[in-house]
Amino acid sequence: MLSMACADLGLCVHIYCPEKDCPAAQVSNSITNGDYTDKKKLLKFSKPLDILTYEFENIDTVGLKEIEKEITIFPPVESLEIAQDRYLEKSFLQSLGIRTTPFYRIDNSLELELLLKKKKKHFILKTRRFGYDGKGQVRIKNYSDIKRNFPQHLLEPSIAEEVLDFDKEISIILARDTKGKIKTFEAAENKHKDGILYSSLVPAKINKKTEKDAISVSRKIALNLNYIGVMGIEFFLKNEKLYVNELAPRVHNSGHWTLDGSNVNQFEQHIRAISGLPLLTPERYANVTMYNLIGTLKSKKKLHKNAKLYLYGKSEVRPGRKMGHINVIKKGS
Amino acid sequence: MLSMACADLGLCVHIYCPEKDCPAAQVSNSITNGDYTDKKKLLKFSKPLDILTYEFENIDTVGLKEIEKEITIFPPVESLEIAQDRYLEKSFLQSLGIRTTPFYRIDNSLELELLLKKKKKHFILKTRRFGYDGKGQVRIKNYSDIKRNFPQHLLEPSIAEEVLDFDKEISIILARDTKGKIKTFEAAENKHKDGILYSSLVPAKINKKTEKDAISVSRKIALNLNYIGVMGIEFFLKNEKLYVNELAPRVHNSGHWTLDGSNVNQFEQHIRAISGLPLLTPERYANVTMYNLIGTLKSKKKLHKNAKLYLYGKSEVRPGRKMGHINVIKKGS
Repeated sequence: MLSMACADLGLCVHIYCPEKDCPAAQVSNSITNGDYTDKKKLLKFSKPLDILTYEFENIDTVGLKEIEKEITIFPPVESLEIAQDRYLEKSFLQSLGIRTTPFYRIDNSLELELLLKKKKKHFILKTRRFGYDGKGQVRIKNYSDIKRNFPQHLLEPSIAEEVLDFDKEISIILARDTKGKIKTFEAAENKHKDGILYSSLVPAKINKKTEKDAISVSRKIALNLNYIGVMGIEFFLKNEKLYVNELAPRVHNSGHWTLDGSNVNQFEQHIRAISGLPLLTPERYANVTMYNLIGTLKSKKKLHKNAKLYLYGKSEVRPGRKMGHINVIKKGS
Repeated sequence: MLSMACADLGLCVHIYCPEKDCPAAQVSNSITNGDYTDKKKLLKFSKPLDILTYEFENIDTVGLKEIEKEITIFPPVESLEIAQDRYLEKSFLQSLGIRTTPFYRIDNSLELELLLKKKKKHFILKTRRFGYDGKGQVRIKNYSDIKRNFPQHLLEPSIAEEVLDFDKEISIILARDTKGKIKTFEAAENKHKDGILYSSLVPAKINKKTEKDAISVSRKIALNLNYIGVMGIEFFLKNEKLYVNELAPRVHNSGHWTLDGSNVNQFEQHIRAISGLPLLTPERYANVTMYNLIGTLKSKKKLHKNAKLYLYGKSEVRPGRKMGHINVIKKGS
């Protein structure tokens, strides 16, 4: 999608990725195959570029930091570093006075036992790094949950978050350009199934004040990260209070609705932000619900015949893998 | 644009074209460089394909007819043959009782002199084949126009069309799928400058009856050609009467507005039509004006800051060359 946004703007795209026929390479000018940990190859690949960007969070930032000395990388690697580590991320939010669910740094299962004893609450234990789509997460209600999951007391560096029985999940897609100008899309209302985003709906069924607050929190985050590019900010909503759940320093699945019913989509907005082109002011002229195609190329649900299909060209269908999405567009805004 | 529509639908694209870094190749799975007249190369290229399509009219149909014996080609080569030859095209329309400006077959300039003497009207002389964007056209008002343009009486096989001082130009973009189902986009109102499309506006400022008539004529044409794919049909409008000016057996410049403000664009509709996917029912949810970027990468006109830019990735800017377009989107439909 980012490559196609570049093509529309007359920009050339060179892809670096481990797979030979990765989706982006199918619509780009050229491809270099290599591992994300191969610093030498990455550096050689980067040298001729004007700008380097990424849409995948789990890249070694040590390598990127070396490249950043020579090539412009947007979003800035520091934002990626923070977003890659749930503990850093939540601590950063806390330092800005932004509300999150209470969280605790956990480095072994004994700490978790003590926390459970002290707080008498339910927790979600999440690995600090490399978790996505519900991976690396486990629900902890009692001691036996801990014993069963961590019989040897060993666990990866993690955080324990108090379980919030939220009313709704929403997200803001924000873009900040090289001059510091910020544009936001309207809030999307998200539904997850088994830890994976299932659907995003615009307009979100929330009041205007809540949406305004979410946008204002998102702007604060972007500003304090000195962020450049598109970012997704996920919120829980409980009793009209917003809790930031997660930052994504990249285009975000809950922004895929913008491919339809919007004058500009998040992919083009990202490319504009990082390449010095002026951001467009998002205007929505239809109601859209996006449904992910998870582990399948066809919707299990009967959808309107005018639904817009997007398949990503991934070589293999796997359970839990996002293979595409469908945008259901309705007139009105 | 067609390649990107394929990418969205998870289809693979192989491009055949003479230029090494042609725009389509930049967003496609693979490219074969070759001349359109190189039948052997074309056939070898075509063999592994499921479907062959084209978006360029001036291809030798003799070669395509040989390929058509082995590979499905949509739009059908016969439609291309008719559309390639202005005399065949107009005669075909006449045979269906469809109104065109009066036209006459001209094979040498003496015939043109006789016609001028007999009719005492102004004519546009157009070469029967290989004309586009106003190329191969000359206005004939008097004998000296003939003498000046054809001093040796020699001219390419042509047709002379009576000049119609029309009120408006409109076009219909139509799609017909392999089951014969037809969907049309709303009429666009077109403005030309120096024989090249300058802008297309939707909704066209015409009455509903005229639009309905234009659609009905377009359907008749598609049906009688047994057409598969997207087709553009250009009309002149004079005193509420429609005259078909030209058929384009491909996606059409006046349909580029569909990239914005429509649930489906003409490129995806074409790919759906030729590949057996169900057509979507076009719904428009914004007003759009498309401006071509002719011989330039930047609009000479001051446009709304939210205007959507499309650059085609052509390697060289040349006067009169279509380098991209801009869609100006306004709420409302």
